[in-house]
Amino acid sequence: MTVTNEDRLKGSVHLSEDGRRVVILDQRELPNRRIERELETKEALFDAIQTLAVRGAPAIGIAAAYGMYVLARRLGESAAEEKESADGGLRPDAFRKRLEEDGAYLISARPTAVNLSWAVNRMLAVLSDRPDAPLPERIRLLHDEAIRIHDEDIGMCRRIAEYGLSLVKPGDGILTHCNAGPLATSKYGTALGPILLGKERGIAFRVFADETRPLLQGARLTSYELSEAGVDVTLICDNMASLVMKNGWINACFVGCDRIAANGDFANKIGTSGVAILAKHYGIPFYTLGPASTVDLNCPTGRDIRIEERDPDEIRSMWYREPMAPKNVKCFNPAFDVTDHALLTAIVTDRGIVYPPFDVNLRRLFG
Amino acid sequence: MTVTNEDRLKGSVHLSEDGRRVVILDQRELPNRRIERELETKEALFDAIQTLAVRGAPAIGIAAAYGMYVLARRLGESAAEEKESADGGLRPDAFRKRLEEDGAYLISARPTAVNLSWAVNRMLAVLSDRPDAPLPERIRLLHDEAIRIHDEDIGMCRRIAEYGLSLVKPGDGILTHCNAGPLATSKYGTALGPILLGKERGIAFRVFADETRPLLQGARLTSYELSEAGVDVTLICDNMASLVMKNGWINACFVGCDRIAANGDFANKIGTSGVAILAKHYGIPFYTLGPASTVDLNCPTGRDIRIEERDPDEIRSMWYREPMAPKNVKCFNPAFDVTDHALLTAIVTDRGIVYPPFDVNLRRLFG
Repeated sequence: MTVTNEDRLKGSVHLSEDGRRVVILDQRELPNRRIERELETKEALFDAIQTLAVRGAPAIGIAAAYGMYVLARRLGESAAEEKESADGGLRPDAFRKRLEEDGAYLISARPTAVNLSWAVNRMLAVLSDRPDAPLPERIRLLHDEAIRIHDEDIGMCRRIAEYGLSLVKPGDGILTHCNAGPLATSKYGTALGPILLGKERGIAFRVFADETRPLLQGARLTSYELSEAGVDVTLICDNMASLVMKNGWINACFVGCDRIAANGDFANKIGTSGVAILAKHYGIPFYTLGPASTVDLNCPTGRDIRIEERDPDEIRSMWYREPMAPKNVKCFNPAFDVTDHALLTAIVTDRGIVYPPFDVNLRRLFG
Repeated sequence: MTVTNEDRLKGSVHLSEDGRRVVILDQRELPNRRIERELETKEALFDAIQTLAVRGAPAIGIAAAYGMYVLARRLGESAAEEKESADGGLRPDAFRKRLEEDGAYLISARPTAVNLSWAVNRMLAVLSDRPDAPLPERIRLLHDEAIRIHDEDIGMCRRIAEYGLSLVKPGDGILTHCNAGPLATSKYGTALGPILLGKERGIAFRVFADETRPLLQGARLTSYELSEAGVDVTLICDNMASLVMKNGWINACFVGCDRIAANGDFANKIGTSGVAILAKHYGIPFYTLGPASTVDLNCPTGRDIRIEERDPDEIRSMWYREPMAPKNVKCFNPAFDVTDHALLTAIVTDRGIVYPPFDVNLRRLFG
């Protein structure tokens, strides 16, 4: 598959034309303002990752890869300047050491984001392959690797989208939860991939987007990016999914995934398991879509996935004009939940569609 | 059952000590401000009902009953003043006609609120019983009828609470949706009745309150009134109910009802049917609690209940500092949904607990 520069511009992260800056679409400002930020220092990159200006595991990985290239280039330039001075500039090992330090600093912005450390380490590995190449050559290698990380993600999403598209028919109603679109990944997204690829091919769907409390990714991001793409999207509150399904408006549910256990149980944004139970009740197929990297065969079942608990103020007040619950009322604010594999029709990955029995078939494809 | 004045003060509506004003706790200001408003004109009463300062079917009925008494008293006083003038003041039929006009005006504040017209008409019926009694006597009859309407509601809620309490045991986890507490009704509330009656008797429960998007009655009202009463309450977003149930924290679900069809299907706040499906999936008993007046044997099934659709901006923006969805994105905003009787463990009413088969047993108790 050939990826063009136009494809790369469809996500929320790309490299500036002069290659000196990482350009991100600030997801904190959506849907009210479309603000691009240009990041050229490690501090700016750290800040963007930590404050969720860039969010979504693959998008964070892509930003980190481009970030490492941008930092290496600056480092190379300052080394070249120093060459004209006494000590002849940075030697390869010193250069690598400085870049390792920058990488460790970036990783510390969100230590639990697996794609972040994965992308940083992949960039550093490039230097190990050609440790003695001239500096411009090493910087070119870093550039190419960052592009490759981005392009691989685009390819992966396109394959997921193709597989997902084979599961629905024109005019179908599709329900989605949270945001697993281009903003969070690259060109097509994962759960939104079949919808956007369908749109490209003139296949229309009717999409219902759960607003996804407490952080409202469905309202702020999914309904935004689908509207922008010209897709027929209707926003609902999470508790309206049952009625929408009962009305016969939904033919399939497409959701993303953060981690898939060996038995098919999977973790995703809080509320996903509820959608799966409703879908089962109404006899609607329920699919999770994600890249091979989310399959974790070392994790036997969903019981082995720890659920992060977040700040109660996300529920009590943060989005509102004024607090909408008693100031100190106890809240339970889990970020994710685990959906039992028994509720899942199939797992759609870039390597193919996995049907039950998941324990056997996941191992066959990913073992 | 004896009702004391202290009991009457536990809801959100009561008569001022001097009997000249309806006092309401303004529910629009909760939980941030506890503001009592004193209403003495028909315009103020109309406004309070229309803008939801007073909400909840029984609370609206009680406010309307007290309102009719307050208006009658003012009318009587101005008539007494006029008596000293030429025409000898209002005759009984003119007095009744004026009060009928005031009642029709109040009803027009929320034409679909059944309890509102029911209470107004019940107040007017008192005048028909003793059409020729002296004016002070007729005003006293109106006063007593308003108190009776309030006291009957308190008694009804207490009986519902007693029946509901028999279904749970000390320490149980109870999940509730929307708000069916004292603010919406009178002293005990309906769905919250067993919890508050239990509290009075030293029986503790662990309550989980769904925030109930889009209008957040669970966050603003339920978690407020349970906290105030010293009940252990935890606020969750609607989409967290599945995880809370999966964690084994819930032993029963208690929800209110707006209308119960002859087969046991019932309409309640949007999201109720989803909670019922989750409860069934996790094997948790699911109860709806409401007075006999919500049972409508003339409505065969839930399919015969029309669901009101509301303003999309309730989803897109109304509570927020700034819009949290694209300005014109399509929304589906149903106010209620219908829960299938097959998902219901029992219906708790002031006349007793109704178990399946609901069609037979509802008719037996209410036919």
